[in-house]
Amino acid sequence: MNAFEAFLQATRPEVDACLQRWLPPAERDELAAALQHVVFSGGKRFRPALVLLAAEHVGGRRADAVPAAAAVELTHAYSLVHDDLPCMDDALLRRGRPCAHVVWGEATGVLAGDALQALAFEVLAHETPPARPVAAMVAALARAAGWSGLVGGQAEDLRGEGQAPELERVRRIHAGKTAAMISVSLRLGALAGGADTGRAEDLAASGLELGLAFQIVDDLLDVRSTTAELGKAAGADAAAAKLTWPAAVGEEAAERDARSLLDGALRRAGDGPGRARFAALGEWLLPRA
Amino acid sequence: MNAFEAFLQATRPEVDACLQRWLPPAERDELAAALQHVVFSGGKRFRPALVLLAAEHVGGRRADAVPAAAAVELTHAYSLVHDDLPCMDDALLRRGRPCAHVVWGEATGVLAGDALQALAFEVLAHETPPARPVAAMVAALARAAGWSGLVGGQAEDLRGEGQAPELERVRRIHAGKTAAMISVSLRLGALAGGADTGRAEDLAASGLELGLAFQIVDDLLDVRSTTAELGKAAGADAAAAKLTWPAAVGEEAAERDARSLLDGALRRAGDGPGRARFAALGEWLLPRA
Repeated sequence: MNAFEAFLQATRPEVDACLQRWLPPAERDELAAALQHVVFSGGKRFRPALVLLAAEHVGGRRADAVPAAAAVELTHAYSLVHDDLPCMDDALLRRGRPCAHVVWGEATGVLAGDALQALAFEVLAHETPPARPVAAMVAALARAAGWSGLVGGQAEDLRGEGQAPELERVRRIHAGKTAAMISVSLRLGALAGGADTGRAEDLAASGLELGLAFQIVDDLLDVRSTTAELGKAAGADAAAAKLTWPAAVGEEAAERDARSLLDGALRRAGDGPGRARFAALGEWLLPRA
Repeated sequence: MNAFEAFLQATRPEVDACLQRWLPPAERDELAAALQHVVFSGGKRFRPALVLLAAEHVGGRRADAVPAAAAVELTHAYSLVHDDLPCMDDALLRRGRPCAHVVWGEATGVLAGDALQALAFEVLAHETPPARPVAAMVAALARAAGWSGLVGGQAEDLRGEGQAPELERVRRIHAGKTAAMISVSLRLGALAGGADTGRAEDLAASGLELGLAFQIVDDLLDVRSTTAELGKAAGADAAAAKLTWPAAVGEEAAERDARSLLDGALRRAGDGPGRARFAALGEWLLPRA
């Protein structure tokens, strides 16, 4: 098995145990049921694995970074619930199951996302070892999630539908919508692992390139897969006239760009015990497209 | 002028200056325009004033608590945008102006709320003096905002529409929807002002009673005012068959309960330089109903 895939499998139970401790039991009420549905829906826990990878890469302990890993996953989960809402991407399926708003209604979909975002900051602030720069970590996650990151990217993505797919615009959308959170995953992991600001900055820069590559692969998957393979509607980007990397430069060039971004990400990550896994990450990611 | 009203007027520019520094300029894009519209819409800055009042009451400096005050206001603002959405309370007006989703559409309404919640944590974590227990403050705000606080209260409020207004249920909704944030305002102010955990706990308990009283007054205002006076649709609670305190116990008993809760809040706040203002707060709040 690919070394990164093995890492995903090894780290997943650590992250899930933390998430399970913080979420209310599904029996509590509809909101709690929606939270459980959204968070435990078979996600790969890709971003949490990046947090833990970065922590080990800088010489730290994985356990110190689990709260940050859970926080990043909660932020990601919230963004998916809101992205799927009727007023946004209007999706029915996510990971092969009906979206939260389909099961519990739109209001609960909005509220579940809101609660997950708050919980991300609670877990991060409450459980990160006090010896780490917790305030800086919270501020970094908030910035990545906010108007200049995740939310800004989603807003520009929606505004861009049907417009000409200029590469600069696509890059800006992907940087906000996807790469900001992947970048902050590596930054938080580095800080939780004890890295200084400079090293954390390098890993954040690595994550930015990795994130762009990840989104390009996702764009390619949307073009090339079936709905059954994806667990969500395939061809949805084209149907919604989304601005995608392959639409801007063609499929072959998009693949080349992804490869070169992954090379850059590996270089910027520098030396450390996680180097082989960083390399394996690229080998795991690219063939999916 | 009432001493609390004077305090509202004095503290407002301090809070607004902080908010203005952190929000993107409206010209940036629609999302930024929506953020400015929502945050600068003539709100009283009641919760921020409570943060600053608590900071001074425990002997601290107002300036140290301004980031927490801004964070509480941003959280409040986010919750209003989402509450007003068509799938929630379906409001058209807020403070006499069209709601964000009416002006920019529902997707931007959702995203604006999401961005404001993230920004709350960014400002709090980035600007609170490092000598304060920033991680504990972030965790407290997140808990008050999340599934067991603000979001939980809103979810139960929506579920409760049309049900019998049992007082225990109304209390639980009001505690989540309103009092959790007012309680955390006093807690954050105390912590930013240098209080120890015990004193901060007392102020949080004071805020819980104050918050219930505040919501009872709000319920009474909804029954007794005109739309022009409120700046939003009057009688909306009854129209939506909301569970309110006056519906549970009658208007007169609701007024008595508000008064007694305010007395309790004042007692729990204990002695300190803010005592006269705490007392004035009650005198300012009650006649509004």
